[in-house]
Parts: sequence; structure tokens; C-alpha cells
Amino acid sequence: MEETFQLRWGILVNCPTIDVIYIATPHSHHFQNAMLALEAGKHVLCEKNFTVNAGQAKKLSTVAEKKQRFLMEGLWTRFLPVSVEVRQFLQAGAIGTVTRVFADNGLGMDPYSDFLPGDLMVVKELAGGALLDLGVYSIHWVLQAMPKTNRRPIQILSTTTEYAVSGVDETTTILMRFAPSTADGPEIQATASASLRAITDPDGETAAVRIQGDQGETQIYGWPWCPSRLRVIRRGPGMNNRGTINRQDRPSTRRSIWTLLRGGRSCTLHLPRSSRESRDALAREHDSNGDHGYSAAGE
Amino acid sequence: MEETFQLRWGILVNCPTIDVIYIATPHSHHFQNAMLALEAGKHVLCEKNFTVNAGQAKKLSTVAEKKQRFLMEGLWTRFLPVSVEVRQFLQAGAIGTVTRVFADNGLGMDPYSDFLPGDLMVVKELAGGALLDLGVYSIHWVLQAMPKTNRRPIQILSTTTEYAVSGVDETTTILMRFAPSTADGPEIQATASASLRAITDPDGETAAVRIQGDQGETQIYGWPWCPSRLRVIRRGPGMNNRGTINRQDRPSTRRSIWTLLRGGRSCTLHLPRSSRESRDALAREHDSNGDHGYSAAGE
Repeated sequence: MEETFQLRWGILVNCPTIDVIYIATPHSHHFQNAMLALEAGKHVLCEKNFTVNAGQAKKLSTVAEKKQRFLMEGLWTRFLPVSVEVRQFLQAGAIGTVTRVFADNGLGMDPYSDFLPGDLMVVKELAGGALLDLGVYSIHWVLQAMPKTNRRPIQILSTTTEYAVSGVDETTTILMRFAPSTADGPEIQATASASLRAITDPDGETAAVRIQGDQGETQIYGWPWCPSRLRVIRRGPGMNNRGTINRQDRPSTRRSIWTLLRGGRSCTLHLPRSSRESRDALAREHDSNGDHGYSAAGE
Repeated sequence: MEETFQLRWGILVNCPTIDVIYIATPHSHHFQNAMLALEAGKHVLCEKNFTVNAGQAKKLSTVAEKKQRFLMEGLWTRFLPVSVEVRQFLQAGAIGTVTRVFADNGLGMDPYSDFLPGDLMVVKELAGGALLDLGVYSIHWVLQAMPKTNRRPIQILSTTTEYAVSGVDETTTILMRFAPSTADGPEIQATASASLRAITDPDGETAAVRIQGDQGETQIYGWPWCPSRLRVIRRGPGMNNRGTINRQDRPSTRRSIWTLLRGGRSCTLHLPRSSRESRDALAREHDSNGDHGYSAAGE
């Protein structure tokens, strides 16, 4: 589409030459915008965080089904090659039975000086805050670490710290418990955390995500929405011995982690540059979205 | 004391030449043993975990006060030089205002093969399980990361995974929230976890404890009850930039972290050998305790 729509949403969603609408408005407006598009018969790809609560997501899903239209949250992390590969090797039991997961996404901003008044990251009316903007990635890493059949927690507990200026959450930690993934396996505990203020990785050497299994551990480094490095640590012989890691720094990106693991080795894989390029593209896209005004989104 | 007491507790606690009794029985018996000793007018040093619930601790404390006797939990971690130093530099604001803490203590055992039936680590009647044996260290790291005046959580949430064979907890995660430590500071969130099955550090390169401040972070490596290495990472200029770390591997143990920090540098400190020796001594002590029979403790 070369046309631009700076007019009314109604014109956009009813345009007969448009098949799919990608929604990149603030979280507060996803439900309203997606519903408008679905009701007009468009397919919808909606930015994360999908909706501000589960009820809204269910309503959208019902309409999409009725209208026979495609509806999906645009959580690109799920489709990164690293995510696909991690899911594959977890499912194949490369680190044994998953027992525990820690996933964090903290920006390390100063809420009192790094955000201008009205910044959508901290405006309550625009559903700003750590959970909806950053937490979705932590939660997603937890969920994709779970076996396919077992991604609904049997217990969820959480605590939030309020950003005093606007009342959004500046730090949120969620504790989850999942049913065992095998008949005689243990229940799985997971912690998904997000923070505007605290920083996940202060020095590039601290894992953002840790997926622990009884035969080893996977550690994901860099921003959880677009990791830069992955470590797979195999536990040594004897359950309570520490494993060893054979570093395989910067292998050819054609040699996948999976191939390395089949050889029975621990490895560190620096992820291909294309991921970083995609991340930069995403950042640019967000910037340009910022330019042409969220004020129109409230219609 | 060169005498040995293989007879009845009553003879021990009433022996006029004994001033202090150190209790190293299973957790299930601490309350009963400590109460007996206090009521007989002895000072008491009691192994961690102090008692199995807060009510028991309060009762012991009341009796100790009435009898004017010394009563303390023998949590040696609090007195390790590394703990003293960490408390000092946190209080002096070396990493700014503390915002978040993660502390884990996981052994990486297989509960189905690494413990013999009757092992006190997994016997419910002896108050076995991850929380009381391992969790106390994680909780202690969280508490000593908090400002002196502010060590009582305003919220506590927790989840446990049961060890199917005996019903003790094999993995426990506790989520805590603390009031701000400064007038305009943020609330502090902390996660203290413990596991018989999952392992804290599979390769010697993963921090057991992370204390995050708005100016930097402290990472503690090795077993949390006796750390082997400490990293202090200073955040770089600009809140949302990653800090850099200047490694100071194996500095003279006479040059303290504190001195390095006063110089404005990030550092890695390998802790003195004496700590490891103490840890080995503790392990030996625990082994020999195991030899002369917990069965007597049930009297």
C-alpha cells in the first residue's frame, strides 16, 4: 500500500484494497482497533502486548472466528530462529526434563528522568508500564520453555512496584507453577520479571533467561526480545556435579546449536547479525510510529 | 569440653561445667532442644534453620529474655568477611539504591537416586526439604541486601513443588516486596529460591545472588552459604547504558573490594582461600554429625 491514512480509522478498515491490518498503537487501544478491523472483515496482526486483559483477547478471538479472519499477536520473538531452535532442542530433551525457568527483561531506565511527561511507556491511560511492555517477553520465554501440551500455569502469583509519578508498574515479578511435563517428572517453577528501572544485564555477561533441566541448562543473553548469545551447558556425569562448558564462540551460523548438541557438546552460540538488523529495523519502525502521533489512536 | 554426652539430654543441659550449647540436630528438633537448654539456664547457639516456624522462634526468644541467656541462630554466612563487606558497601551506596534482588540456592540432586530412604534432607518428620535446608541462605542474602531499618517484607508470596516420595518441598520460590529504603526511592522486589533438584550454578559462571541497584550490581558466585567470587559492576554514565566491568581478577586479598570501589572501579574479587577451608570444615562437621546418629535427637 502506498496510500497513507491520516484520516479516520473507519476509512482505513473499510478500504476494499486492504486485506490485513497491522496494529501498532499503544496497548490501551489494541482491543478497540483490532475489533474495528475484524468487524470490517480484515485480518489482524496486533502488536504485543495483545490486549490489556484476557477478557478482551477472548472477545477478539470470538469475533475473528465468527468472521473467519486471521488474528495474531505480533510477538516476533516467537519466530526468531533462536526461539524455534530452543523449542526444538527442549522438546527433544537436550537438557532433560525442564525443572525451573527464570526470565527477566529490565531496561535500567530512571523513571524520573529518562521519560518525558506523556511518554507512552509511563502513561497509565495508554497502558504503559513494565508488565505490558517488557513482561510479555519474559512470560513468552517461560511459556516456550514449557512442553507444548503444558503451557497453562496451575498457579500464578505476582507483585508490582508502582511508578509513583503516574501509577503504572515500574517493576513486576510473576511466579508461576506448571504441572509436570512427564508422568514421573517434577512440577516446574518459573519466574518472569520485568522492570523499567532495574537492568537485566548490566555488563553483557549476565543471562536474561535461564531454562534449567535435570541434564543441563540453557542461558539466553542480551535483550530477551532479540537475544545476542545462547549458552547451552550440559550437566556433567553425576547429577550433583557441575557440568563443564566447551565454548564454541562464533561458530559458523550454518552450524546450528542443534547440530552441536547432537554431538553431545555444550556450546556458546553468537546469534547471526540478521537478528540484530531486524532489531534495529524494529527500533526504527517504533521511532517512526512515534512521529506520526499516538493522539489519533484514541478515536 | 572433652567429655562426651551419649546419654540423656537432661544430663547435658544440667551439667554445671557447660555454659553454652550448640544445637546441630535436625530442624524438626531445634525448638525442643533449644527450649530444654534455655530452661536449664544455658546459652544457645542453634543451627539454621532456627525453628520450623515463627511461633517457635518467638517462644524461644521469650524464654531466653526471661532467663537472660544468649540465643542465636548459627547462620555463619552472616559473619563471613564477604557478607560484612557486602553490607558495608551497600549501606554506603556503592551501587546506589537497591531495587531488586535475586538469590538462589539449588543443589542439583536427583531426589529419586541421590538420597537414601531416611536421609534427613528428604524426611518430612525431620523437617527436611529445600526451604529449611537451603532456602535460609537465599532469604538471608535478600535480607542482608536490604537497608538495616527495612528488613521486614511488606508482601510475601511463595510456591513449592513437592518431592513425591516423602512430601517435603523439593523446590521453593519466595517473592518478597520491601518498602522503599529512601524517601523517594522505589519499593524493592526480591526473589529467594531453593531447590534440591535444580542447580544454581551449572558451570561456575552463573551468579547465585544478584543485588541490583540503580548505580550498579553485585553478583555473588559459588554456593551462597560460602561464596567463592564476587563481582561488582558499576553502571556506566547514563542510566540506561550498560556499565563496563574492569576485571581485577585475583587481587591481593588484603586489598578489599571496598578499597577498589572507593577508587570508582568495577571489580571481580576471588574470595580468600580461608573461606573455602571453612566450607570444607563445615562439610566435615556435617558428615561427622551424620555419623553419630540423629536417632538420639528425638528424645
